[in-house]
Amino acid sequence: MVQIMTTHDNDAFKPIATVDLAIFSMTPNGLSVLLARRANAPFAGVWALPGGWIHIDIDHDLETAARRVLKEKTGVEMPYLEQLQTVGNANRDPRGWSISVVYVALISSDDLAAGQGARSGEAQWWPIEGNGVDVHLAFDHALLLSDALTRIRKKVEYSTLPAHLLPSRFTLSELQSLYERLLGRKLDKSAFRKRVAEAGFLVPVEGEMRRASNRPAQVFRLKDAQSLVLFDRTL
Amino acid sequence: MVQIMTTHDNDAFKPIATVDLAIFSMTPNGLSVLLARRANAPFAGVWALPGGWIHIDIDHDLETAARRVLKEKTGVEMPYLEQLQTVGNANRDPRGWSISVVYVALISSDDLAAGQGARSGEAQWWPIEGNGVDVHLAFDHALLLSDALTRIRKKVEYSTLPAHLLPSRFTLSELQSLYERLLGRKLDKSAFRKRVAEAGFLVPVEGEMRRASNRPAQVFRLKDAQSLVLFDRTL
Repeated sequence: MVQIMTTHDNDAFKPIATVDLAIFSMTPNGLSVLLARRANAPFAGVWALPGGWIHIDIDHDLETAARRVLKEKTGVEMPYLEQLQTVGNANRDPRGWSISVVYVALISSDDLAAGQGARSGEAQWWPIEGNGVDVHLAFDHALLLSDALTRIRKKVEYSTLPAHLLPSRFTLSELQSLYERLLGRKLDKSAFRKRVAEAGFLVPVEGEMRRASNRPAQVFRLKDAQSLVLFDRTL
Repeated sequence: MVQIMTTHDNDAFKPIATVDLAIFSMTPNGLSVLLARRANAPFAGVWALPGGWIHIDIDHDLETAARRVLKEKTGVEMPYLEQLQTVGNANRDPRGWSISVVYVALISSDDLAAGQGARSGEAQWWPIEGNGVDVHLAFDHALLLSDALTRIRKKVEYSTLPAHLLPSRFTLSELQSLYERLLGRKLDKSAFRKRVAEAGFLVPVEGEMRRASNRPAQVFRLKDAQSLVLFDRTL
Protein backbone atom coordinates (compact mmCIF):
# COMPACT_ATOMS: atom_id res chain seq x y z
CA MET A 1 0.00 0.00 0.00
CA VAL A 2 1.17 3.52 -0.75
CA GLN A 3 1.31 5.66 2.38
CA ILE A 4 0.74 9.34 1.65
CA MET A 5 2.73 11.48 4.09
CA THR A 6 1.47 15.01 4.59
CA THR A 7 3.32 17.76 6.42
CA HIS A 8 0.98 17.22 9.35
CA ASP A 9 2.12 13.69 9.91
CA ASN A 10 5.49 15.20 10.73
CA ASP A 11 6.46 15.60 14.39
CA ALA A 12 7.56 19.18 13.82
CA PHE A 13 3.92 20.04 13.19
CA LYS A 14 2.57 18.52 16.39
CA PRO A 15 1.46 20.81 19.21
CA ILE A 16 3.06 20.65 22.65
CA ALA A 17 0.82 18.46 24.86
CA THR A 18 0.67 18.86 28.63
CA VAL A 19 -1.56 18.06 31.60
CA ASP A 20 -2.18 20.70 34.26
CA LEU A 21 -3.87 20.17 37.62
CA ALA A 22 -5.99 22.38 39.84
CA ILE A 23 -5.50 20.54 43.15
CA PHE A 24 -7.80 21.70 45.96
CA SER A 25 -7.96 20.99 49.68
CA MET A 26 -9.16 22.63 52.89
CA THR A 27 -6.28 24.17 54.82
CA PRO A 28 -6.41 26.32 57.97
CA ASN A 29 -6.78 29.21 55.50
CA GLY A 30 -9.89 27.71 53.91
CA LEU A 31 -10.28 26.36 50.39
CA SER A 32 -6.78 26.34 48.89
CA VAL A 33 -5.04 25.37 45.66
CA LEU A 34 -1.61 23.82 45.30
CA LEU A 35 0.77 25.87 43.17
CA ALA A 36 4.30 25.06 42.07
CA ARG A 37 7.02 27.61 41.42
CA ARG A 38 8.44 27.02 37.96
CA ALA A 39 12.10 26.00 37.96
CA ASN A 40 12.75 26.55 34.26
CA ALA A 41 11.87 28.88 31.41
CA PRO A 42 9.38 29.93 30.28
CA PHE A 43 8.08 31.80 33.33
CA ALA A 44 10.98 30.60 35.55
CA GLY A 45 10.31 31.55 39.19
CA VAL A 46 6.61 32.24 38.53
CA TRP A 47 3.85 30.26 40.31
CA ALA A 48 1.76 27.91 38.19
CA LEU A 49 -0.68 25.03 38.39
CA PRO A 50 1.36 21.83 38.74
CA GLY A 51 1.66 20.10 35.39
CA GLY A 52 3.97 18.75 32.80
CA TRP A 53 4.44 17.28 29.38
CA ILE A 54 2.72 14.04 28.55
CA HIS A 55 5.47 11.43 28.58
CA ILE A 56 4.46 9.07 25.80
CA ASP A 57 7.15 6.62 26.84
CA ILE A 58 5.82 6.15 30.41
CA ASP A 59 2.23 7.48 30.59
CA HIS A 60 -0.32 4.93 29.44
CA ASP A 61 -3.07 7.52 29.07
CA LEU A 62 -4.02 11.09 30.01
CA GLU A 63 -5.22 10.14 33.47
CA THR A 64 -1.97 8.28 34.16
CA ALA A 65 -0.10 11.45 33.25
CA ALA A 66 -2.31 13.52 35.58
CA ARG A 67 -1.87 11.03 38.45
CA ARG A 68 1.89 11.03 37.91
CA VAL A 69 2.03 14.82 38.30
CA LEU A 70 -0.28 14.63 41.30
CA LYS A 71 1.88 12.06 43.03
CA GLU A 72 5.05 14.03 42.30
CA LYS A 73 3.55 17.17 43.82
CA THR A 74 1.47 15.82 46.73
CA GLY A 75 2.44 12.21 47.38
CA VAL A 76 -1.28 11.37 47.11
CA GLU A 77 -2.07 8.56 44.70
CA MET A 78 -5.82 8.09 44.62
CA PRO A 79 -7.83 11.21 45.28
CA TYR A 80 -10.90 12.36 43.37
CA LEU A 81 -9.72 13.38 39.90
CA GLU A 82 -11.88 14.82 37.13
CA GLN A 83 -11.09 16.11 33.67
CA LEU A 84 -12.22 19.73 33.50
CA GLN A 85 -11.49 20.96 29.98
CA THR A 86 -8.81 21.12 27.31
CA VAL A 87 -7.36 24.39 26.12
CA GLY A 88 -5.10 24.75 23.12
CA ASN A 89 -3.93 27.63 20.98
CA ALA A 90 -0.97 29.26 19.28
CA ASN A 91 -0.32 31.87 21.98
CA ARG A 92 -0.56 30.35 25.45
CA ASP A 93 3.00 29.01 25.51
CA PRO A 94 5.96 30.94 24.09
CA ARG A 95 7.48 27.63 22.97
CA GLY A 96 4.70 27.10 20.41
CA TRP A 97 1.18 25.78 19.77
CA SER A 98 0.25 24.15 23.05
CA ILE A 99 -2.53 21.94 24.38
CA SER A 100 -3.26 21.53 28.08
CA VAL A 101 -5.66 18.89 29.34
CA VAL A 102 -6.79 20.31 32.67
CA TYR A 103 -7.81 18.14 35.64
CA VAL A 104 -9.35 19.03 39.00
CA ALA A 105 -8.22 16.99 42.01
CA LEU A 106 -9.70 17.07 45.52
CA ILE A 107 -7.41 16.11 48.39
CA SER A 108 -8.56 15.12 51.85
CA SER A 109 -6.97 17.41 54.42
CA ASP A 110 -5.59 14.27 56.11
CA ASP A 111 -3.69 13.31 52.96
CA LEU A 112 -2.56 16.87 52.73
CA ALA A 113 -1.03 16.69 56.21
CA ALA A 114 0.59 13.31 55.47
CA GLY A 115 2.05 13.85 52.05
CA GLN A 116 2.37 17.45 51.04
CA GLY A 117 6.09 17.22 50.41
CA ALA A 118 6.73 18.33 46.87
CA ARG A 119 9.43 16.26 45.27
CA SER A 120 9.98 18.33 42.15
CA GLY A 121 10.59 21.97 42.85
CA GLU A 122 8.87 24.28 45.25
CA ALA A 123 5.14 23.79 45.94
CA GLN A 124 2.80 25.61 48.28
CA TRP A 125 -0.90 25.83 49.18
CA TRP A 126 -2.45 29.19 48.33
CA PRO A 127 -5.80 30.25 49.80
CA ILE A 128 -8.53 30.99 47.26
CA GLU A 129 -9.59 34.61 47.21
CA GLY A 130 -12.54 35.39 44.95
CA ASN A 131 -11.93 33.68 41.63
CA GLY A 132 -8.26 32.94 42.12
CA VAL A 133 -5.19 33.51 44.24
CA ASP A 134 -3.30 36.61 45.27
CA VAL A 135 -0.24 35.90 43.13
CA HIS A 136 0.57 36.19 39.44
CA LEU A 137 0.33 32.86 37.60
CA ALA A 138 2.27 31.65 34.56
CA PHE A 139 0.73 31.00 31.12
CA ASP A 140 -3.09 31.20 31.12
CA HIS A 141 -3.26 29.48 34.50
CA ALA A 142 -5.25 32.27 36.20
CA LEU A 143 -8.00 31.57 33.67
CA LEU A 144 -7.73 27.80 34.11
CA LEU A 145 -7.95 28.21 37.90
CA SER A 146 -10.97 30.49 37.61
CA ASP A 147 -12.71 27.92 35.36
CA ALA A 148 -11.91 25.17 37.88
CA LEU A 149 -13.37 27.23 40.75
CA THR A 150 -16.53 27.90 38.77
CA ARG A 151 -16.89 24.17 38.15
CA ILE A 152 -16.36 23.05 41.74
CA ARG A 153 -18.60 25.79 43.18
CA LYS A 154 -21.40 24.73 40.86
CA LYS A 155 -20.93 21.09 41.88
CA VAL A 156 -21.21 21.92 45.60
CA GLU A 157 -24.89 22.67 44.87
CA TYR A 158 -25.73 19.20 43.63
CA SER A 159 -23.02 16.72 44.61
CA THR A 160 -20.97 15.21 47.41
CA LEU A 161 -17.90 17.21 46.35
CA PRO A 162 -17.18 18.91 49.73
CA ALA A 163 -16.89 15.52 51.46
CA HIS A 164 -13.74 14.86 49.40
CA LEU A 165 -12.02 17.89 50.93
CA LEU A 166 -12.65 16.97 54.58
CA PRO A 167 -10.41 14.82 56.78
CA SER A 168 -11.11 11.14 56.06
CA ARG A 169 -13.42 10.85 59.09
CA PHE A 170 -16.03 13.46 59.89
CA THR A 171 -19.43 14.05 61.48
CA LEU A 172 -22.54 15.21 59.64
CA SER A 173 -22.26 18.59 61.38
CA GLU A 174 -18.73 19.05 60.04
CA LEU A 175 -19.93 18.10 56.56
CA GLN A 176 -22.87 20.52 56.68
CA SER A 177 -20.60 23.25 57.98
CA LEU A 178 -18.25 22.85 55.00
CA TYR A 179 -21.16 22.95 52.52
CA GLU A 180 -22.34 26.15 54.16
CA ARG A 181 -18.87 27.67 54.02
CA LEU A 182 -18.46 26.85 50.31
CA LEU A 183 -22.01 27.94 49.42
CA GLY A 184 -21.86 31.07 51.56
CA ARG A 185 -25.30 30.39 53.07
CA LYS A 186 -26.95 28.37 55.84
CA LEU A 187 -28.69 25.07 55.06
CA ASP A 188 -31.68 23.52 56.79
CA LYS A 189 -30.35 20.67 58.93
CA SER A 190 -33.08 18.11 58.36
CA ALA A 191 -33.32 18.78 54.61
CA PHE A 192 -29.53 18.49 54.34
CA ARG A 193 -29.45 15.19 56.25
CA LYS A 194 -32.25 13.81 54.09
CA ARG A 195 -30.31 14.66 50.90
CA VAL A 196 -27.14 13.11 52.31
CA ALA A 197 -28.96 9.93 53.37
CA GLU A 198 -30.59 9.59 49.92
CA ALA A 199 -27.24 9.97 48.17
CA GLY A 200 -25.90 6.98 50.13
CA PHE A 201 -22.22 7.90 49.89
CA LEU A 202 -21.27 7.63 53.58
CA VAL A 203 -20.39 4.68 55.77
CA PRO A 204 -20.58 4.98 59.58
CA VAL A 205 -17.26 4.17 61.25
CA GLU A 206 -18.33 1.47 63.68
CA GLY A 207 -18.11 2.42 67.32
CA GLU A 208 -16.56 5.81 66.57
CA MET A 209 -18.43 8.75 68.04
CA ARG A 210 -17.33 12.33 68.54
CA ARG A 211 -18.57 14.52 71.37
CA ALA A 212 -20.08 17.70 70.00
CA SER A 213 -21.80 20.50 71.97
CA ASN A 214 -24.58 18.36 73.40
CA ARG A 215 -24.44 14.65 72.59
CA PRO A 216 -22.04 12.22 70.86
CA ALA A 217 -22.18 12.31 67.07
CA GLN A 218 -21.55 9.36 64.74
CA VAL A 219 -18.34 9.55 62.72
CA PHE A 220 -18.54 8.75 58.99
CA ARG A 221 -16.19 8.07 56.09
CA LEU A 222 -16.64 8.08 52.31
CA LYS A 223 -17.81 4.84 50.71
CA ASP A 224 -15.68 5.65 47.63
CA ALA A 225 -13.06 8.40 47.73
CA GLN A 226 -12.65 8.43 43.96
CA SER A 227 -16.25 9.14 42.87
CA LEU A 228 -18.66 11.97 43.47
CA VAL A 229 -22.35 11.16 43.92
CA LEU A 230 -24.78 13.61 42.30
CA PHE A 231 -27.97 14.70 44.07
CA ASP A 232 -31.31 14.62 42.24
CA ARG A 233 -31.92 18.26 43.10
CA THR A 234 -29.76 21.22 44.06
CA LEU A 235 -29.40 22.00 47.77
CA MET B 1 20.40 31.76 30.31
CA VAL B 2 21.09 28.07 30.04
CA GLN B 3 18.19 26.18 28.47
CA ILE B 4 17.98 22.59 29.60
CA MET B 5 16.61 20.39 26.83
CA THR B 6 15.01 17.14 27.94
CA THR B 7 13.98 14.31 25.68
CA HIS B 8 10.37 15.42 26.11
CA ASP B 9 11.01 18.78 24.51
CA ASN B 10 11.69 16.86 21.34
CA ASP B 11 9.00 16.64 18.68
CA ALA B 12 9.51 12.91 18.36
CA PHE B 13 8.09 12.56 21.87
CA LYS B 14 4.93 14.54 21.25
CA PRO B 15 1.63 12.68 20.97
CA ILE B 16 -0.50 12.89 17.83
CA ALA B 17 -3.15 15.59 18.42
CA THR B 18 -6.52 15.56 16.67
CA VAL B 19 -10.02 16.95 16.99
CA ASP B 20 -13.03 14.68 16.39
CA LEU B 21 -16.64 15.76 16.08
CA ALA B 22 -19.93 14.11 16.95
CA ILE B 23 -22.25 16.14 14.69
CA PHE B 24 -25.96 15.59 15.33
CA SER B 25 -29.12 16.65 13.51
CA MET B 26 -32.71 15.50 13.04
CA THR B 27 -33.18 13.73 9.72
CA PRO B 28 -36.27 11.92 8.40
CA ASN B 29 -34.78 8.89 10.24
CA GLY B 30 -34.73 10.71 13.59
CA LEU B 31 -31.70 11.80 15.59
CA SER B 32 -28.67 11.14 13.37
CA VAL B 33 -24.91 11.55 13.44
CA LEU B 34 -22.67 12.50 10.54
CA LEU B 35 -19.97 9.92 9.77
CA ALA B 36 -17.16 10.08 7.24
CA ARG B 37 -15.66 7.09 5.49
CA ARG B 38 -11.90 7.15 5.96
CA ALA B 39 -9.96 7.60 2.74
CA ASN B 40 -6.54 6.61 4.13
CA ALA B 41 -4.90 4.20 6.53
CA PRO B 42 -5.31 3.46 9.34
CA PHE B 43 -8.85 2.09 9.05
CA ALA B 44 -9.13 3.03 5.34
CA GLY B 45 -12.72 2.53 4.13
CA VAL B 46 -14.10 2.35 7.69
CA TRP B 47 -16.68 4.87 8.97
CA ALA B 48 -15.54 7.34 11.63
CA LEU B 49 -16.48 10.55 13.38
CA PRO B 50 -15.27 13.42 11.18
CA GLY B 51 -11.99 14.77 12.48
CA GLY B 52 -8.42 15.53 11.72
CA TRP B 53 -5.03 16.62 12.93
CA ILE B 54 -4.68 19.99 14.52
CA HIS B 55 -2.94 22.16 11.91
CA ILE B 56 -0.71 24.38 13.99
CA ASP B 57 0.10 26.48 10.94
CA ILE B 58 -3.54 27.47 10.24
CA ASP B 59 -5.67 26.70 13.33
CA HIS B 60 -5.57 29.50 15.88
CA ASP B 61 -7.01 27.33 18.64
CA LEU B 62 -8.81 24.05 19.30
CA GLU B 63 -12.23 25.47 18.48
CA THR B 64 -10.93 26.87 15.17
CA ALA B 65 -9.71 23.38 14.32
CA ALA B 66 -13.12 21.90 15.19
CA ARG B 67 -14.97 24.52 13.14
CA ARG B 68 -12.64 23.90 10.20
CA VAL B 69 -13.48 20.18 10.23
CA LEU B 70 -17.17 20.99 10.65
CA LYS B 71 -17.19 23.35 7.69
CA GLU B 72 -15.31 20.86 5.52
CA LYS B 73 -17.83 18.14 6.30
CA THR B 74 -21.14 20.03 6.49
CA GLY B 75 -20.67 23.50 5.00
CA VAL B 76 -22.16 24.89 8.26
CA GLU B 77 -20.04 27.56 9.92
CA MET B 78 -21.74 28.58 13.13
CA PRO B 79 -23.78 25.87 14.81
CA TYR B 80 -23.83 25.05 18.49
CA LEU B 81 -20.45 23.55 19.34
CA GLU B 82 -19.37 22.21 22.73
CA GLN B 83 -16.21 20.51 23.92
CA LEU B 84 -17.19 17.09 25.28
CA GLN B 85 -14.00 15.47 26.56
CA THR B 86 -10.42 14.66 25.65
CA VAL B 87 -9.18 11.11 25.31
CA GLY B 88 -5.56 10.15 24.94
CA ASN B 89 -3.58 6.96 25.26
CA ALA B 90 -0.94 4.76 23.74
CA ASN B 91 -3.32 2.33 22.03
CA ARG B 92 -6.17 4.14 20.33
CA ASP B 93 -4.25 4.93 17.13
CA PRO B 94 -1.86 2.44 15.50
CA ARG B 95 0.37 5.38 14.51
CA GLY B 96 1.25 6.09 18.13
CA TRP B 97 0.27 7.87 21.34
CA SER B 98 -2.76 9.92 20.32
CA ILE B 99 -4.94 12.63 21.84
CA SER B 100 -8.39 13.47 20.54
CA VAL B 101 -10.24 16.55 21.73
CA VAL B 102 -13.88 15.62 21.12
CA TYR B 103 -16.59 18.18 20.27
CA VAL B 104 -20.35 17.84 19.97
CA ALA B 105 -22.07 19.94 17.29
CA LEU B 106 -25.81 20.41 16.78
CA ILE B 107 -26.99 21.25 13.27
CA SER B 108 -30.39 22.72 12.41
CA SER B 109 -32.14 20.47 9.93
CA ASP B 110 -32.44 23.52 7.60
CA ASP B 111 -28.67 23.89 7.50
CA LEU B 112 -28.45 20.19 6.97
CA ALA B 113 -30.68 20.44 3.87
CA ALA B 114 -28.74 23.45 2.55
CA GLY B 115 -25.15 22.39 3.08
CA GLN B 116 -24.71 18.71 3.62
CA GLY B 117 -22.27 18.29 0.73
CA ALA B 118 -19.09 16.82 2.11
CA ARG B 119 -16.06 18.33 0.47
CA SER B 120 -13.45 15.92 1.75
CA GLY B 121 -14.26 12.29 1.17
CA GLU B 122 -17.50 10.45 1.66
CA ALA B 123 -19.86 11.55 4.43
CA GLN B 124 -23.31 10.33 5.42
CA TRP B 125 -25.94 10.77 8.13
CA TRP B 126 -26.50 7.61 10.18
CA PRO B 127 -29.57 7.22 12.39
CA ILE B 128 -28.86 6.69 16.08
CA GLU B 129 -29.89 3.28 17.32
CA GLY B 130 -29.55 2.76 21.07
CA ASN B 131 -26.15 4.07 22.09
CA GLY B 132 -24.61 4.26 18.66
CA VAL B 133 -25.00 3.42 14.99
CA ASP B 134 -25.44 0.17 13.12
CA VAL B 135 -21.99 0.20 11.53
CA HIS B 136 -18.46 -0.53 12.74
CA LEU B 137 -16.50 2.62 13.61
CA ALA B 138 -12.75 3.25 13.37
CA PHE B 139 -10.47 3.83 16.39
CA ASP B 140 -12.40 4.22 19.69
CA HIS B 141 -15.11 6.23 17.95
CA ALA B 142 -17.96 3.93 19.03
CA LEU B 143 -17.05 4.82 22.62
CA LEU B 144 -16.72 8.53 21.84
CA LEU B 145 -20.13 8.49 20.12
CA SER B 146 -21.73 6.69 23.06
CA ASP B 147 -20.28 9.28 25.46
CA ALA B 148 -21.61 12.10 23.26
CA LEU B 149 -25.10 10.56 23.22
CA THR B 150 -25.07 10.21 27.01
CA ARG B 151 -24.14 13.87 27.29
CA ILE B 152 -26.79 15.22 24.92
CA ARG B 153 -29.54 13.00 26.34
CA LYS B 154 -28.78 14.26 29.84
CA LYS B 155 -28.87 17.86 28.59
CA VAL B 156 -32.31 17.42 27.01
CA GLU B 157 -33.62 17.19 30.60
CA TYR B 158 -32.42 20.63 31.64
CA SER B 159 -31.55 22.73 28.62
CA THR B 160 -32.71 24.16 25.30
CA LEU B 161 -30.60 21.62 23.39
CA PRO B 162 -33.39 20.13 21.21
CA ALA B 163 -34.21 23.58 19.78
CA HIS B 164 -30.80 23.56 18.07
CA LEU B 165 -31.72 20.46 16.08
CA LEU B 166 -35.02 21.80 14.68
CA PRO B 167 -35.47 23.78 11.47
CA SER B 168 -34.63 27.44 12.12
CA ARG B 169 -38.33 28.37 12.52
CA PHE B 170 -40.70 26.26 14.59
CA THR B 171 -43.81 26.32 16.75
CA LEU B 172 -43.95 25.49 20.46
CA SER B 173 -45.83 22.29 19.62
CA GLU B 174 -43.03 21.18 17.31
CA LEU B 175 -40.48 21.97 20.02
CA GLN B 176 -42.41 20.05 22.68
CA SER B 177 -42.82 17.13 20.32
CA LEU B 178 -39.04 16.91 19.77
CA TYR B 179 -38.36 17.03 23.54
CA GLU B 180 -40.86 14.20 24.01
CA ARG B 181 -39.26 12.18 21.23
CA LEU B 182 -35.76 12.56 22.69
CA LEU B 183 -36.91 11.97 26.27
CA GLY B 184 -39.15 9.05 25.34
CA ARG B 185 -42.06 10.37 27.45
CA LYS B 186 -44.92 12.87 27.30
CA LEU B 187 -44.60 16.31 28.91
CA ASP B 188 -47.32 18.45 30.46
CA LYS B 189 -48.03 21.25 27.96
CA SER B 190 -48.51 24.14 30.40
CA ALA B 191 -45.50 23.18 32.56
CA PHE B 192 -43.36 22.87 29.41
CA ARG B 193 -44.44 26.27 28.09
CA LYS B 194 -43.76 27.87 31.47
CA ARG B 195 -40.21 26.44 31.50
CA VAL B 196 -39.62 27.62 27.93
CA ALA B 197 -40.92 31.12 28.69
CA GLU B 198 -38.71 31.39 31.80
CA ALA B 199 -35.62 30.34 29.86
CA GLY B 200 -36.17 33.26 27.44
CA PHE B 201 -34.31 31.77 24.49
CA LEU B 202 -36.95 32.21 21.78
CA VAL B 203 -37.95 35.18 19.65
CA PRO B 204 -41.36 35.25 17.92
CA VAL B 205 -41.03 35.69 14.15
CA GLU B 206 -43.23 38.73 13.63
CA GLY B 207 -46.42 38.09 11.65
CA GLU B 208 -45.50 34.46 11.02
CA MET B 209 -48.14 31.98 12.11
CA ARG B 210 -48.57 28.35 11.22
CA ARG B 211 -51.94 26.65 11.01
CA ALA B 212 -52.02 23.64 13.30
CA SER B 213 -54.98 21.29 13.96
CA ASN B 214 -57.26 23.94 15.43
CA ARG B 215 -55.91 27.50 15.43
CA PRO B 216 -52.87 29.39 14.05
CA ALA B 217 -49.68 28.97 16.13
CA GLN B 218 -46.93 31.58 16.51
CA VAL B 219 -43.64 30.70 14.81
CA PHE B 220 -40.42 31.18 16.80
CA ARG B 221 -36.68 31.22 16.18
CA LEU B 222 -33.66 30.95 18.50
CA LYS B 223 -32.37 34.18 20.03
CA ASP B 224 -28.81 32.77 19.84
CA ALA B 225 -28.03 29.67 17.77
CA GLN B 226 -24.59 29.26 19.35
CA SER B 227 -25.54 29.00 23.05
CA LEU B 228 -27.68 26.63 25.07
CA VAL B 229 -29.76 28.05 27.91
CA LEU B 230 -29.95 25.85 31.03
CA PHE B 231 -33.21 25.42 32.96
CA ASP B 232 -33.26 25.85 36.76
CA ARG B 233 -34.85 22.43 37.14
CA THR B 234 -35.11 19.28 35.06
CA LEU B 235 -38.23 18.77 32.94
